[in-house]
Amino acid sequence: MRAIDLNCDLGESFGNYKCGMDEEIIPCITSANVACGFHASDPLVMQKTVRTAKENQVHVGAHPGFPDLVGFGRRNMSLSAAEITSSIIYQIGALAAFCTASGIALQHVKPHGALYNMAVKDPNIADAICAGIAAVDTDLILLGPAGSALIKSAQKYNLPVAREIFADRAYEEDGTLVPRSHTGAVIADKDLAISRVIRMIEKGTVTAITGKEIEVQADSVCIHGDSLAALTFARDIHAALLSEGITLEPMCKVIRQAG
Amino acid sequence: MRAIDLNCDLGESFGNYKCGMDEEIIPCITSANVACGFHASDPLVMQKTVRTAKENQVHVGAHPGFPDLVGFGRRNMSLSAAEITSSIIYQIGALAAFCTASGIALQHVKPHGALYNMAVKDPNIADAICAGIAAVDTDLILLGPAGSALIKSAQKYNLPVAREIFADRAYEEDGTLVPRSHTGAVIADKDLAISRVIRMIEKGTVTAITGKEIEVQADSVCIHGDSLAALTFARDIHAALLSEGITLEPMCKVIRQAG
Amino acid sequence: MRAIDLNCDLGESFGNYKCGMDEEIIPCITSANVACGFHASDPLVMQKTVRTAKENQVHVGAHPGFPDLVGFGRRNMSLSAAEITSSIIYQIGALAAFCTASGIALQHVKPHGALYNMAVKDPNIADAICAGIAAVDTDLILLGPAGSALIKSAQKYNLPVAREIFADRAYEEDGTLVPRSHTGAVIADKDLAISRVIRMIEKGTVTAITGKEIEVQADSVCIHGDSLAALTFARDIHAALLSEGITLEPMCKVIRQAG
Amino acid sequence: MRAIDLNCDLGESFGNYKCGMDEEIIPCITSANVACGFHASDPLVMQKTVRTAKENQVHVGAHPGFPDLVGFGRRNMSLSAAEITSSIIYQIGALAAFCTASGIALQHVKPHGALYNMAVKDPNIADAICAGIAAVDTDLILLGPAGSALIKSAQKYNLPVAREIFADRAYEEDGTLVPRSHTGAVIADKDLAISRVIRMIEKGTVTAITGKEIEVQADSVCIHGDSLAALTFARDIHAALLSEGITLEPMCKVIRQAG
Repeated sequence: MRAIDLNCDLGESFGNYKCGMDEEIIPCITSANVACGFHASDPLVMQKTVRTAKENQVHVGAHPGFPDLVGFGRRNMSLSAAEITSSIIYQIGALAAFCTASGIALQHVKPHGALYNMAVKDPNIADAICAGIAAVDTDLILLGPAGSALIKSAQKYNLPVAREIFADRAYEEDGTLVPRSHTGAVIADKDLAISRVIRMIEKGTVTAITGKEIEVQADSVCIHGDSLAALTFARDIHAALLSEGITLEPMCKVIRQAG
Repeated sequence: MRAIDLNCDLGESFGNYKCGMDEEIIPCITSANVACGFHASDPLVMQKTVRTAKENQVHVGAHPGFPDLVGFGRRNMSLSAAEITSSIIYQIGALAAFCTASGIALQHVKPHGALYNMAVKDPNIADAICAGIAAVDTDLILLGPAGSALIKSAQKYNLPVAREIFADRAYEEDGTLVPRSHTGAVIADKDLAISRVIRMIEKGTVTAITGKEIEVQADSVCIHGDSLAALTFARDIHAALLSEGITLEPMCKVIRQAG
Repeated sequence: MRAIDLNCDLGESFGNYKCGMDEEIIPCITSANVACGFHASDPLVMQKTVRTAKENQVHVGAHPGFPDLVGFGRRNMSLSAAEITSSIIYQIGALAAFCTASGIALQHVKPHGALYNMAVKDPNIADAICAGIAAVDTDLILLGPAGSALIKSAQKYNLPVAREIFADRAYEEDGTLVPRSHTGAVIADKDLAISRVIRMIEKGTVTAITGKEIEVQADSVCIHGDSLAALTFARDIHAALLSEGITLEPMCKVIRQAG
Repeated sequence: MRAIDLNCDLGESFGNYKCGMDEEIIPCITSANVACGFHASDPLVMQKTVRTAKENQVHVGAHPGFPDLVGFGRRNMSLSAAEITSSIIYQIGALAAFCTASGIALQHVKPHGALYNMAVKDPNIADAICAGIAAVDTDLILLGPAGSALIKSAQKYNLPVAREIFADRAYEEDGTLVPRSHTGAVIADKDLAISRVIRMIEKGTVTAITGKEIEVQADSVCIHGDSLAALTFARDIHAALLSEGITLEPMCKVIRQAG
């Protein structure tokens, strides 16, 4: 029987600013990507988020981003490899300390926003990230999309990897996402999106935008809780997976079974 | 035979901005208080500083401060206890990750600037700091001045403590520092300052500003490397201690011997 | 016939973070205190806020705060007088440029949060603020509570002043606010609060917490739009003032009439 | 007789961090590009820098950069046009307020670091910058290299322009700088560099890297004061221009004569 992880970004509030619906989404997920203070969050939010994750048996990952609070880490920045590596070490360490304080282990690392998007394509950036992760703890799972430079780099650095899929996004024949700027990149039909997710998990296949059936490895589904629509969709996916008899497990267990 | 630690703030550069003479002072010291990115430093500087410390067999401590880069952490801020605790956890975690990456252990924590000064007097702030340290690792040594609220709080939280003395400062009868605003607070005579340090280490006594002999426990001497004068003075102290036959050891060894 | 200004903090969003209900509250007010990027806001938010204010014929004031984004400017900080003055000049200038770009004049300055609260009581901080305002433009109105160090300082620096009243707060006999920590500091009865506001405007008097009738000068009423309850209350005050026949005017007109 | 402006970046210190040799370079220059707090500087430094410039009869320009303090504004960032425009307005306004406070007029705007480099080539970024300048004051001079997208955009927005030349850099046949990565990009021979500057000013020509004589318009020479070598070279250029009988004038006067 196949198991899957559901991951979601959490802890993106900052000081007086509330962002996301962490309380509402957390019962739907098995792994949380927790912001580390560079593109979002602050120490108090991180502490609270890790505690809430623990109370809900949700595993915690670091979600490091570019040092760009006003841009929410969504703007490309040209950092040197050394700057990226050290900023990854810094952010992982900060979050790991809250995990230690809560008596849980840090499970994974998923880069955020522009850093994630750049690392998916650029091996140098992917290497800079994975070098940072490996320097802190080689048991940390790198969470990224199948076939990306990120996954390849993680394997090079002997890091365990978890591959995430996207319910509402179309795929190219090579297993990469169709860029958002292209027609058909986003799958608006919610039922279709859910049935695609189930097939990716159960059969390991998805229909690419060209119509061709391709293989895809699914360890985790990326869901969102930053809008009411996203929350509703997340709940629908969660319910559909359960009713399909798919087990929901944190990615550390999913990849152990898969491996 | 008595041993003593020499501690100094290190790694206070930031991006393009160079600050301090780390390369020059590091041969003089046995423990480094490394800034953690809130009042000074950045990930690249932290990484480099930890590496340099390791290469010089200097033990590393976290030097967390207020989130006030433009004020260098020297301006009082009214943070809540929860804000202080979480910001301590964050900063310790960030620095500890660089220690892990360099294969060394984090030795101690010394709060910086206004946070240090406030915690010396205010038990609530001291408790908020020590709660943060204890939440991460109860083996971390709290470095602070003898008789301070910081030391008392650390003992309450079962943290090991190291007491630091100041070569160029006068003491009250209760073992606290004479405030800088008072006449005679700073000891300008360098030879007198050094002989006082040696007596504090060897005899455990110092002449208070009132003329009375008082007891003082010295595990570490706080020295500075942020000016040429400070560097020269640090070298003089270093040389004087060695010629006096006093052993220089990181504070973790000094307090093990003392205890 | 008496006129009054209604002022409210606006433009407190930051990057991806939305804060306040600017669109909803703006029809209720005649003057907006616009955050300047130190405790809240960013250049894009400031530009949009000034434009929206102009479209709604709402006059714009600068709302400078401490450089403390994560604390939303609500935490006391010990800045030097020179640091305060220069940070006031900086923030006023930044906002004034958006006013220029929108073809309107900057009307007033109201310090924010902890800076406001400290300046209300501390003449040195009040002077540091007013020195900054006067250095840029002596026609800028200082908005603060009657009887405060802020108002006194503004008069010393020959700045026009507007005195604001608070609908939901009790007053001491000397015209200052009863501190929030005291019983009876907040007036929970909305009808009572509104009737007090009307009497303060029409009669220039209010019943102090001791029961004594005191004089109070009202040029502006401070209202809030950062919660649904605050918004509803603001709308009730707005409606009550109109139905009472009180004219709503920006503070620059109110104080011209009063003077 | 030909006049020329000498411009230099000033006021790049930040809080406790000192950067540059402003006191030493200021007697050599006629225009200062003053950092505005995004990539460097803070309100106190800006205030002091504007005062020092005024005392030395040096004209002041804004030197806006990316919001990237740790990267000193030298790292490319992908801001939207609206984000760039509003951040330009913000930074110009902040600096202009210090000019007002010192009783001088803001003369010009020169983008900094990565923002400058990107705008030199990218018309969209250049337009976003010039739109911000024009929104505040169409009398502000845009300072940039001849033939750049920046200069073209400024002309489109009806801003006066000043063209700067670089003493130690080689030129392509089209009047643009040879990229630093290419052999021969930097002219190491100081005497040659100075003689080239003088010929660019007096004859309006320079020998391109291909050997061809090309025309170049010189309103200002960009010099540096951030190292002892730079300072020495700046002094040499300054002395050579004077001994050649070239008049040193702020760019507002140079372009009036040239126009």
